[in-house]
Amino acid sequence: MVSKEFMGNLFDVSGKVALVTGATGALGKAVSIGYGLAGMKVMVTGRKEETCKALCEELEAQGIPCAYSTGDPALEADVIKVVNDTITAFGEINVLVTAAGYNKPQPIMEQDLSTWKQIMDSDVQGTWLFCKYVGEQMIKQGKGGKVIMVSSARSKMGMANYTGYCTAKGGIDLMAQSLACEWTAKYQINVNTINPTVFRSNLTEWMFDPESAVYQNFLKRLPIGRLGEPEDFVGPCIFLASKASDFMTGANVATDGGYWAN
Amino acid sequence: MVSKEFMGNLFDVSGKVALVTGATGALGKAVSIGYGLAGMKVMVTGRKEETCKALCEELEAQGIPCAYSTGDPALEADVIKVVNDTITAFGEINVLVTAAGYNKPQPIMEQDLSTWKQIMDSDVQGTWLFCKYVGEQMIKQGKGGKVIMVSSARSKMGMANYTGYCTAKGGIDLMAQSLACEWTAKYQINVNTINPTVFRSNLTEWMFDPESAVYQNFLKRLPIGRLGEPEDFVGPCIFLASKASDFMTGANVATDGGYWAN
Amino acid sequence: MVSKEFMGNLFDVSGKVALVTGATGALGKAVSIGYGLAGMKVMVTGRKEETCKALCEELEAQGIPCAYSTGDPALEADVIKVVNDTITAFGEINVLVTAAGYNKPQPIMEQDLSTWKQIMDSDVQGTWLFCKYVGEQMIKQGKGGKVIMVSSARSKMGMANYTGYCTAKGGIDLMAQSLACEWTAKYQINVNTINPTVFRSNLTEWMFDPESAVYQNFLKRLPIGRLGEPEDFVGPCIFLASKASDFMTGANVATDGGYWAN
Amino acid sequence: MVSKEFMGNLFDVSGKVALVTGATGALGKAVSIGYGLAGMKVMVTGRKEETCKALCEELEAQGIPCAYSTGDPALEADVIKVVNDTITAFGEINVLVTAAGYNKPQPIMEQDLSTWKQIMDSDVQGTWLFCKYVGEQMIKQGKGGKVIMVSSARSKMGMANYTGYCTAKGGIDLMAQSLACEWTAKYQINVNTINPTVFRSNLTEWMFDPESAVYQNFLKRLPIGRLGEPEDFVGPCIFLASKASDFMTGANVATDGGYWAN
Repeated sequence: MVSKEFMGNLFDVSGKVALVTGATGALGKAVSIGYGLAGMKVMVTGRKEETCKALCEELEAQGIPCAYSTGDPALEADVIKVVNDTITAFGEINVLVTAAGYNKPQPIMEQDLSTWKQIMDSDVQGTWLFCKYVGEQMIKQGKGGKVIMVSSARSKMGMANYTGYCTAKGGIDLMAQSLACEWTAKYQINVNTINPTVFRSNLTEWMFDPESAVYQNFLKRLPIGRLGEPEDFVGPCIFLASKASDFMTGANVATDGGYWAN
Repeated sequence: MVSKEFMGNLFDVSGKVALVTGATGALGKAVSIGYGLAGMKVMVTGRKEETCKALCEELEAQGIPCAYSTGDPALEADVIKVVNDTITAFGEINVLVTAAGYNKPQPIMEQDLSTWKQIMDSDVQGTWLFCKYVGEQMIKQGKGGKVIMVSSARSKMGMANYTGYCTAKGGIDLMAQSLACEWTAKYQINVNTINPTVFRSNLTEWMFDPESAVYQNFLKRLPIGRLGEPEDFVGPCIFLASKASDFMTGANVATDGGYWAN
Repeated sequence: MVSKEFMGNLFDVSGKVALVTGATGALGKAVSIGYGLAGMKVMVTGRKEETCKALCEELEAQGIPCAYSTGDPALEADVIKVVNDTITAFGEINVLVTAAGYNKPQPIMEQDLSTWKQIMDSDVQGTWLFCKYVGEQMIKQGKGGKVIMVSSARSKMGMANYTGYCTAKGGIDLMAQSLACEWTAKYQINVNTINPTVFRSNLTEWMFDPESAVYQNFLKRLPIGRLGEPEDFVGPCIFLASKASDFMTGANVATDGGYWAN
Repeated sequence: MVSKEFMGNLFDVSGKVALVTGATGALGKAVSIGYGLAGMKVMVTGRKEETCKALCEELEAQGIPCAYSTGDPALEADVIKVVNDTITAFGEINVLVTAAGYNKPQPIMEQDLSTWKQIMDSDVQGTWLFCKYVGEQMIKQGKGGKVIMVSSARSKMGMANYTGYCTAKGGIDLMAQSLACEWTAKYQINVNTINPTVFRSNLTEWMFDPESAVYQNFLKRLPIGRLGEPEDFVGPCIFLASKASDFMTGANVATDGGYWAN
């Protein structure tokens, strides 16, 4: 029933524990802060101690319960360690956001197998490993969970020089769909993707120059008339972590300013 | 910036005016109550005075500012009247939810043109007309808006005996995508669809018998392991009406228990 | 078994009877000639006697068995007449190609309901009616058939000022999918769509000016580096009419130079 | 122009050289024989000398110019060797069909990283490597080419216990789309996928028992009312290798009995 009680905490995620991979990237950081300000406990993870620590301190300065654990998402031992550290710090994991990723655009003719593998391993294998070990924990806990994979608008749209990144993201959407089939009915774990277009970050800052051809071309494809800002990413992440999306699983949620729409 | 202020009203829709078509149906009613309990003013519309009035009274009994205006969404004059009544009652329109719809499953060989037209007119033409006249109003108001079309999981998945309904819903997704291209950058009106699978209602109650073959077959296709309940529909509707989804436009938001995922 | 016999007539459509709607348009004409040169008997149909007759004479001059019957695809009586004329002329119908269509791009704010209806009626209702009456005939014949709906790359990609055309084409894809579910197993009638991007015609000739901004923008979206020529359309039409595609039904065959791919 | 000359060799692939990976599997074998009977020279490749040799002899017995070269598609050195052997044998490569693949369905909880990697390496990395080295050759030849990746209906539809296979195939569709963007305009190399549902093979024979629940469930999802036979696969492969599909690139051609349609 759509009651006052039901509505009262529709988007309430306070008290939940979130593990965020790639937390020090622009999107991962936005989610980490957003989750923290919404009352969640946040486990920050990334490759580098320095940036993880700095982010954690930034969150704690805002009164957010936070911890960090470093590791390479593509390495099984690291993933296991990060998951264990999360349990140690917060006792459980309720939400997983896989925001770690890597790209290196190159024509296939110029890309070494090792570079291509690095993209695939960071993006796909890292996601798979975190799903496996966080999923194991969620199943053990026995009270469901929410897995949110950061995919990309590129998961359904190819691009020259992106045989790594597009392939990886195309794979991630299907991994989410498959895990939804495997887990949701049985364990009440919802698995969805968020599919962003280009968002502002240190790496993409140059694309935001309104005078540049890149920016102008993007605008022609983006019905919303602008590129993404980190805060645009937070709403969908809270939504997919809350009971408001309890009936959604295996969905690819376009957070793309309409990129897929035209 | 992802600040406390930003997060504080991320899903806050209070004070907004929503016009809900097909408001007396199961989904329309869930949205109307949910919106009302979230602090919105709700204009209820449907074909029958009696049911509209009853719903309006039910909402008012819960302290929700509500009004109703009857009309056939497929008739231009009725749509114009309903829109005008909304302005009269509440002064503006901030959110449009087109939940009116009709279906009559029949083999194409047995379906009369007039029956097929009735499906198309109720579902597609009614949506187009409400978009046109509410859009005109939103543009006049000059402060953006949110249009949420209730499409269906059937918008991308065909079905025997559904050459009306599937065609209509397939069309609605594209209408949303086209309006997103037309409106979002220019007028800050976001246009998205929600694509539900079967939800409980008077019409579908029979499908919820766990012993029935229909139900058993559905479960095989629904990773979530159950059909939809009206309250499952409210979260996505609030989300798409709030600033949390400001970067989403032209999106088809699967609210389908994973139907599209497998 | 993949035998010499099987391979020998894999794409052989000779002797089959095709009914082509919108036959005097650029795509319809290409199919009509292509089918005729491949040995099919071709029933040409369109709204205007003059152009239908001229096309028919052009085909007959190349030795193609041809007839024509005029009618408005949106009018039930006309469709019945055209179908009957085809039976009278050739005794049966084996392949239906619905290439009739209409577009009138306008902002929804400037488009009258009657104009929008005209687009929907020409594109969607016309397709539905031809499917209904040709399907009836194919079922009566009892030896299967091939229905090919000319949809559009626009069936999945919205566009400003296209709330008619995109909606119509989005609907057509789903109509094909639904009819595939309804007919293929039962009657061996395969139903597929071809989804072209812009092809050269009298109406689109202006877009082919390599200096124009329209053309330049198109090229950025078309991995193939050019727009479509009528002959590009013929291969998919023969393929979908032949036994080579016997396992395909309900498919949307992108004939779009990669428009959907990026 | 749609002339007699144009139509005369629309599907003619005779004289072309095809490299088929996974050639000794059911689909690879069907393509190899089909291409051979259509007049192509066929380079057969697979992991095992014995089965490659046997297939090659079977083809030669039917008068088909054939050679074989063994190798693991996931190993760069092997791929380079196979490509070189093809040049040595036939002087050029005009068509690449990547039909090699591997699956091992397991719940993610029970699947070792090494098993998952094996699926990804065989399916995705093997495809990438063959595209890279055959593409290099095609570019050097300077007369275009056709790349056909055997993906799967599973590329867009998740499945429990398929976090390897679905992920891999989802990736392959995007690799094709990306290569289309990268290559088609520049080098006239068309890159498309064929997306089959279950086809009869030694591995799937058990699914074809009409009495089994698996078969019965499949039929509910397959509008065509049957599973695939190897010869169903040949038509799309010839089509995509011929000039009939010259305007298609980056397309995912459903060869799935309508699996995607419902």
